[in-house]
Amino acid sequence: MDERPGLSTPAAEIAVRIRVLQAALAAEDLDAALILQTADLYYYAGTVQQSYLLVPADGEAVLFVRRVVERARVESPLEVVPLGSPRDLPALLGERLAAGPAAFGAAGTAESGGGRLRIGLELDVLPVATLQRLGDLIPHMEAADISTAIIHQRAVKSPHEVELIRGAARITDGVCARLPDLLEEGLTEAEFAGRFEAVARALGHEGIIRMRGFNQEMFYGQLVSGPNGAAPGFLDTPLSGEGLSPAIAQGVTMRRIGRGEPVVFDFVSVHGGYIADFTRMFSLGPLPESCRRAFAVAQLIEDEVAAAARPGATCRELYELALARAAAAGLQDGFMGAPGYTARFIGHGVGLELDELPVLSANDTPLTEGMVFALEPKFVLPGIGAVGIEDTFLVTAHGAERLSQTEQRLFEL
Amino acid sequence: MDERPGLSTPAAEIAVRIRVLQAALAAEDLDAALILQTADLYYYAGTVQQSYLLVPADGEAVLFVRRVVERARVESPLEVVPLGSPRDLPALLGERLAAGPAAFGAAGTAESGGGRLRIGLELDVLPVATLQRLGDLIPHMEAADISTAIIHQRAVKSPHEVELIRGAARITDGVCARLPDLLEEGLTEAEFAGRFEAVARALGHEGIIRMRGFNQEMFYGQLVSGPNGAAPGFLDTPLSGEGLSPAIAQGVTMRRIGRGEPVVFDFVSVHGGYIADFTRMFSLGPLPESCRRAFAVAQLIEDEVAAAARPGATCRELYELALARAAAAGLQDGFMGAPGYTARFIGHGVGLELDELPVLSANDTPLTEGMVFALEPKFVLPGIGAVGIEDTFLVTAHGAERLSQTEQRLFEL
Repeated sequence: MDERPGLSTPAAEIAVRIRVLQAALAAEDLDAALILQTADLYYYAGTVQQSYLLVPADGEAVLFVRRVVERARVESPLEVVPLGSPRDLPALLGERLAAGPAAFGAAGTAESGGGRLRIGLELDVLPVATLQRLGDLIPHMEAADISTAIIHQRAVKSPHEVELIRGAARITDGVCARLPDLLEEGLTEAEFAGRFEAVARALGHEGIIRMRGFNQEMFYGQLVSGPNGAAPGFLDTPLSGEGLSPAIAQGVTMRRIGRGEPVVFDFVSVHGGYIADFTRMFSLGPLPESCRRAFAVAQLIEDEVAAAARPGATCRELYELALARAAAAGLQDGFMGAPGYTARFIGHGVGLELDELPVLSANDTPLTEGMVFALEPKFVLPGIGAVGIEDTFLVTAHGAERLSQTEQRLFEL
Repeated sequence: MDERPGLSTPAAEIAVRIRVLQAALAAEDLDAALILQTADLYYYAGTVQQSYLLVPADGEAVLFVRRVVERARVESPLEVVPLGSPRDLPALLGERLAAGPAAFGAAGTAESGGGRLRIGLELDVLPVATLQRLGDLIPHMEAADISTAIIHQRAVKSPHEVELIRGAARITDGVCARLPDLLEEGLTEAEFAGRFEAVARALGHEGIIRMRGFNQEMFYGQLVSGPNGAAPGFLDTPLSGEGLSPAIAQGVTMRRIGRGEPVVFDFVSVHGGYIADFTRMFSLGPLPESCRRAFAVAQLIEDEVAAAARPGATCRELYELALARAAAAGLQDGFMGAPGYTARFIGHGVGLELDELPVLSANDTPLTEGMVFALEPKFVLPGIGAVGIEDTFLVTAHGAERLSQTEQRLFEL
């Protein structure tokens, strides 16, 4: 890790992140947060080693690490304390929190231990049984959901985070530049995907794509060709693909890619844990005019929404702008998915997870400087396939900056 | 899907699975189960479409589907009822359960609605906030954890499931047969991984590897070379690899593979949603004698444990047999991981998830016919790397049957 310092989170940045979380704890009258989920651990501690991060409302954060202690010490600027067993947590927490160790005894001492300890937890992702085990260990604990504060904080990226997202976008650009050489008539979708995924790996793609939502899963994105692009999916995404079996039910199939078909390359890159989301369209030979026209509308929507995506603009304004442009082109029925199964957003935040804030949907959240989102106007043309474009953008004081460099055009090979 | 009927779950098998779950509900005095998690949905309903599966203790199971209704109807033999919104759940559940609709009214009607409804839920994976939303919708619900019954049921595979695991193992065999052509001196681990992952995809590898445990994640397994094989990891696995960044912290690196180094190919295949886990070792040129010797011990342990893995044998007996063989060879310190970070198991169940029962550790669960597990005796030789073997086995009346065909030997190229 030492030779790649750009991938480690600067200590000053971790300190700021912890202070912002502490302000949220104070505002919600919580004594501390206990952070357990991998993406959040990485955000606040700079490491994903198996650990519990205690952030008191006042005082220094401390990382209790089960494994690997040595690696956590290299990666995290926080104090690292080895944790032999979760059973040691109550005593360790007691030492660290102002309420004192008495509050953390076994259940039998509950009466003698002063007030309850209000602990903020990631209740949006923490399994019920995990919370129950924590509650058994720390009977004085009163669990509160701190996840809303966390996901709002994480929606606004620092320059360090933006650099990592730029790195992810560079992988995408590198893969995309190779696609004209890799795409051949008669390849199955699965074969073609394997080819460009191999390029991505060689460029440093980290593979694992984290999502926060329950049951959400994604493998590199969606590569769909011809009518497979029109298959509605079980996830709330505009495109899905049918997948190789009912068990996975999204993504590539064994369908062979033919001439003149829209091939949608919707690709999620990961670099230093950070995600960039991206879509371009390819075809072997000319596409039907309906595809070209829909693509031009998608490109127009992306350009107009990006230009409007300034600090203060609300998600709803951007969403309605996109809907209006799609309707003006007479393409409202298949906008953002198969008719009857359209997604009700045109973009989503990306960062350490693929499903971050802001969601560009009918909600009144205003954009702020530092937010990063993927904007993905897409159409499904029943019987023909999918058409669309997607780039990841950074909200700056001067408007949205596109983080990938690949040309915004149709690639008819 | 129609052209690949082998990948769909037979209706008779779904009926049996539901009946076994109903017996567990009756034994725990529950009125019904409500299944929400993707892998469990696939197991009991034959589809992963966005849905809620209601299994009453008595009567017919019904699948309430938000999307995609048409696909769920093709894939599932159960009754499929469209669900416009989760808000419609209480009324739908009320119609289906013997307690009647009165029990499912808004909170205000709670007093009038008879007794509470005891619903079994997957509390080991269900997020706290998801349970809270369900509880708000269905105020009379008393949630009980049904996950132990589910994971025990799922540990014993049907012939249909075993065929799918065999299909996953065939992908592994196919990839492994290509490795001698793909491995070259000077490739980075990431480049090499990309090459064989592309082969896997072309053969139908489905990409997504499901794990049940909180914070568990895996991308194709672990490809580690030379000293990277000795890096301890944050997951409870024998091998880890350092990964490309602190954010992911497992798997391949940008290290170049050299001559005479142990290259461990620990590969997880997925076919029809089912997993086979597998490890072989490769090297460019001869390996150090210490590696050869440790590999021979690993192979001996795999053979002896597999021979002892008959119905009735306990996990503890197999685990202790392996420990004894490692100790007899003087290799106990690095057995199952880097010294100080060894995994406390020698194998684990596989199926729709990578972390299933049985766990071959110090527990007294007896093996039963139909269980499928990956057996993975591995050693870490500090400074040199990792050494080991792994195959997926089916417990039969006559002993454990190896499901992959690749030769059990060292591949010194």
